[in-house]
Amino acid sequence: MSKPAPKRFQPPAIDRLPEDIRTRILAVQEKSGFVPNVFLTLAYRPDEFRAFFAYHDALMEKDSGLTKAEREMIVVATSAANQCHYCVIAHGAILRIRAKNPQIADQIAVNYRKADITPRQRAMLDFAMKVARHAEAVDEADSAALRAHGFGDDDIWDIAAIAAFFGMSNRLANFASLRPNDEFYALGR
Amino acid sequence: MSKPAPKRFQPPAIDRLPEDIRTRILAVQEKSGFVPNVFLTLAYRPDEFRAFFAYHDALMEKDSGLTKAEREMIVVATSAANQCHYCVIAHGAILRIRAKNPQIADQIAVNYRKADITPRQRAMLDFAMKVARHAEAVDEADSAALRAHGFGDDDIWDIAAIAAFFGMSNRLANFASLRPNDEFYALGR
Amino acid sequence: MSKPAPKRFQPPAIDRLPEDIRTRILAVQEKSGFVPNVFLTLAYRPDEFRAFFAYHDALMEKDSGLTKAEREMIVVATSAANQCHYCVIAHGAILRIRAKNPQIADQIAVNYRKADITPRQRAMLDFAMKVARHAEAVDEADSAALRAHGFGDDDIWDIAAIAAFFGMSNRLANFASLRPNDEFYALGR
Amino acid sequence: MSKPAPKRFQPPAIDRLPEDIRTRILAVQEKSGFVPNVFLTLAYRPDEFRAFFAYHDALMEKDSGLTKAEREMIVVATSAANQCHYCVIAHGAILRIRAKNPQIADQIAVNYRKADITPRQRAMLDFAMKVARHAEAVDEADSAALRAHGFGDDDIWDIAAIAAFFGMSNRLANFASLRPNDEFYALGR
Amino acid sequence: MSKPAPKRFQPPAIDRLPEDIRTRILAVQEKSGFVPNVFLTLAYRPDEFRAFFAYHDALMEKDSGLTKAEREMIVVATSAANQCHYCVIAHGAILRIRAKNPQIADQIAVNYRKADITPRQRAMLDFAMKVARHAEAVDEADSAALRAHGFGDDDIWDIAAIAAFFGMSNRLANFASLRPNDEFYALGR
Amino acid sequence: MSKPAPKRFQPPAIDRLPEDIRTRILAVQEKSGFVPNVFLTLAYRPDEFRAFFAYHDALMEKDSGLTKAEREMIVVATSAANQCHYCVIAHGAILRIRAKNPQIADQIAVNYRKADITPRQRAMLDFAMKVARHAEAVDEADSAALRAHGFGDDDIWDIAAIAAFFGMSNRLANFASLRPNDEFYALGR
Repeated sequence: MSKPAPKRFQPPAIDRLPEDIRTRILAVQEKSGFVPNVFLTLAYRPDEFRAFFAYHDALMEKDSGLTKAEREMIVVATSAANQCHYCVIAHGAILRIRAKNPQIADQIAVNYRKADITPRQRAMLDFAMKVARHAEAVDEADSAALRAHGFGDDDIWDIAAIAAFFGMSNRLANFASLRPNDEFYALGR
Repeated sequence: MSKPAPKRFQPPAIDRLPEDIRTRILAVQEKSGFVPNVFLTLAYRPDEFRAFFAYHDALMEKDSGLTKAEREMIVVATSAANQCHYCVIAHGAILRIRAKNPQIADQIAVNYRKADITPRQRAMLDFAMKVARHAEAVDEADSAALRAHGFGDDDIWDIAAIAAFFGMSNRLANFASLRPNDEFYALGR
Repeated sequence: MSKPAPKRFQPPAIDRLPEDIRTRILAVQEKSGFVPNVFLTLAYRPDEFRAFFAYHDALMEKDSGLTKAEREMIVVATSAANQCHYCVIAHGAILRIRAKNPQIADQIAVNYRKADITPRQRAMLDFAMKVARHAEAVDEADSAALRAHGFGDDDIWDIAAIAAFFGMSNRLANFASLRPNDEFYALGR
Repeated sequence: MSKPAPKRFQPPAIDRLPEDIRTRILAVQEKSGFVPNVFLTLAYRPDEFRAFFAYHDALMEKDSGLTKAEREMIVVATSAANQCHYCVIAHGAILRIRAKNPQIADQIAVNYRKADITPRQRAMLDFAMKVARHAEAVDEADSAALRAHGFGDDDIWDIAAIAAFFGMSNRLANFASLRPNDEFYALGR
Repeated sequence: MSKPAPKRFQPPAIDRLPEDIRTRILAVQEKSGFVPNVFLTLAYRPDEFRAFFAYHDALMEKDSGLTKAEREMIVVATSAANQCHYCVIAHGAILRIRAKNPQIADQIAVNYRKADITPRQRAMLDFAMKVARHAEAVDEADSAALRAHGFGDDDIWDIAAIAAFFGMSNRLANFASLRPNDEFYALGR
Repeated sequence: MSKPAPKRFQPPAIDRLPEDIRTRILAVQEKSGFVPNVFLTLAYRPDEFRAFFAYHDALMEKDSGLTKAEREMIVVATSAANQCHYCVIAHGAILRIRAKNPQIADQIAVNYRKADITPRQRAMLDFAMKVARHAEAVDEADSAALRAHGFGDDDIWDIAAIAAFFGMSNRLANFASLRPNDEFYALGR
């Protein structure tokens, strides 16, 4: 139960990883007190590790019209629809912390339509779920509905891009049987 | 019909793009004779552009146990399932060229089960489609089926990662109404 | 946020409820320290309240070949598939307590195929999910698979009956927008 | 073909059943001329028998803003969606009798959208089907649509509760391969 | 309620129909005592009428390795899956008559897996349903399963062709809101 | 790769076919330069061949309020949804020729919502797709939407009938593993 993923995708020991990857992993350990398993599993593929986190940071860490908590709401809602063990547990923890709300992650993971969110956030998640599940049918009417709640084009891109990025991440984590660290379950409760 | 995507997501003119992005775009133009629209649309977001193509190249350009044609088969099969206009047309062209086969892309896009592929490629696409559509149910039996066709762990990772990456790419392209360049329709026929 | 359900289905004050219902509610409050909202909402319909809890207790409280924790696993897995806010949160808490495991409820709610359960419990949940989602296709092969894990006919009935009962309960709770009490979120973590 | 369900779930002979259950069974035999198989199969589990019929009667026999025929329409429509052999045949017979209409049950079972029902009944069945198939998405707009047809809150609860109760009943009957009595096929035609 | 379909698709009066169509309609009236509504509705389009019944007769009336009752089983099972009011009611009647069994049509319409049919007929309907619902995935393994029950290549073609033909017929009838004649409901019971 | 379908459904040599069928086949060869495989495969069953092409011609060759290109759009869109290798490739070629547009068939096959079509054609395809995928839910509102774009009752019948006919044709072709002739892939590009 302590392994992040099946042995066949285990990376080398941390001191044998490429310098930049080892540095990033040590930095996150320093900040969080533990190394989230996604870092260790993706280190199996250094180039993919670098691209993955560059993409992640471009969407999740920059300034945006969406708060960081709202961005995590998108992650939790779409990851739950995709039944992604790692992403729901790990990003559920981050959402609790960023929203300073111990209940919101569980509410959104089970049924975001019943969660204690604003109508604006509901529209945001309706759109994110459409991108996650029926992107082929997304059209101008979806953008119009978002604009009615004050979202601009950059916000709309952000919502779609986060839903799309975790559409990739959820599939990778499910394929690799990536396990959340034990620490995530209780964080922010 | 000549615009790659809705105007609201148009990037600045090419000479006002960041140096590294302009260089990459000019290189692809030099090599292909045109700039695939995905480059222009993603240039709207330079950091995402960089991460996207770094990820793409890590999966699609490196040496691998899968041929480049096989990797494009995965892209076409899963992008068709996701009804992605850009990816099916553009990567269908690349598949025709890499497989030196003018029919294979259309066959795989319509119904990969009826395409002229080897049993090994069929197993590869069955797995890729499961990652694309039901990743939550992927398990060890899927890997065992692939190993029976000679795929190793790195190959299995590649198949899953390509299906996952285009799971993201298809959603982005559908959201942004990204259009394939006219050139792609006829290439390799 | 403190109301168990929309006002239009609020029952009368507790001291105006029928004697037997008031007694049951006070007993559960005595035992748990709070009154789970399902009691208050169903008290809106006293006859349905009585039948519901009689059925619930017949399945969940009696001696059985399934442990109480296993029965709660069935509730959490099928309620998550049905996206039932109340049932996943409330029975997730009960599962954590009965299994003395703070992680198991979240694991089963997100993707029971990735949860830390025994192969026997996996077979149990596979069957429960089939009853919940495709009962029309249940057949003798399903029972044979369960018998191979040591389940007897009474156990098989119990699994099916619990999945069916919460098939009803999930629909009622979703219809009535039944909210879990705040206490449930943290219990057993 | 004359057995109500697989032998492994057969109850004891009728004279060895608990007093209250035997009494109820004899009463229904007296009234109907035969014992519907659901009574015999559920007698395998006396406590569940008692709760099941108490619940059933609370929903189907009491006074309500819905006629008894309308309540049976809900049963037939949702049981057909759930492909429940016993419930469609048995409640189809009851619907024919209560509606004094030999065609209505078959019409509703095949495609309720094409049945000879009033617009009010159509709205009732649209809602019942949503509870049966997509309860997670039920919201206030559904209630508003029903109110526009004159349904009050108690009626709305009744529709949802009947759809939910037969959501349980259909799953039990499909699991137990419960067979309708031969008598039901021709009743009311 | 006595009209076979919406007025806008009503054909001219019977004595103004083309000679061959009038003759066919009078012949069926002579034989059955009434004119099934499908004849009247399709007469709106004489060329389609001729092709439809020529196709129908080629599949349903000729000698075949399938009995006429078995062919009607295919019609009823697939038409129920397609929720076709006309086809289930009208062909249900024909099935009752051809199988000399008043219950079989209702059983197959509700859930063919629970119907009183032979294992060979079950295999036949499993295949017919796959053609009706997932023809894109039909492969050699399906034919092998049928051969194991003694079906030859011509039988397999017949099963598939009947499922396909009623795939068309069900869609036409649902589109045109084609209603079964009152006579069909009670025939053969 | 040169065989139109599995050997077990091969018709006799062309000079041993019934006179009328041989004549039709020779005529199409004269006109097109090759014999589309659907003619050869259906010749395995002469009566079904005659009915099939009579039906096809009644819908696709006559004068109609829909242009021939529009009718082929319906074929391509619905056949792509049904994943029919033969129909998408062969009718894609016909569509390119009739619309004098080398891109339109690929666009419609991948995602008709993103194709370069008029709003009227979009409404036509939305309706055709509903007939193809959810005919049970077609109702008057669908016709009203079409009338708003200038379609009359005869046009509406045509759209529905073409979608229904290819609903049959796609299932037959998928069952029989009917392969498009090599010529179709490049025609009209």
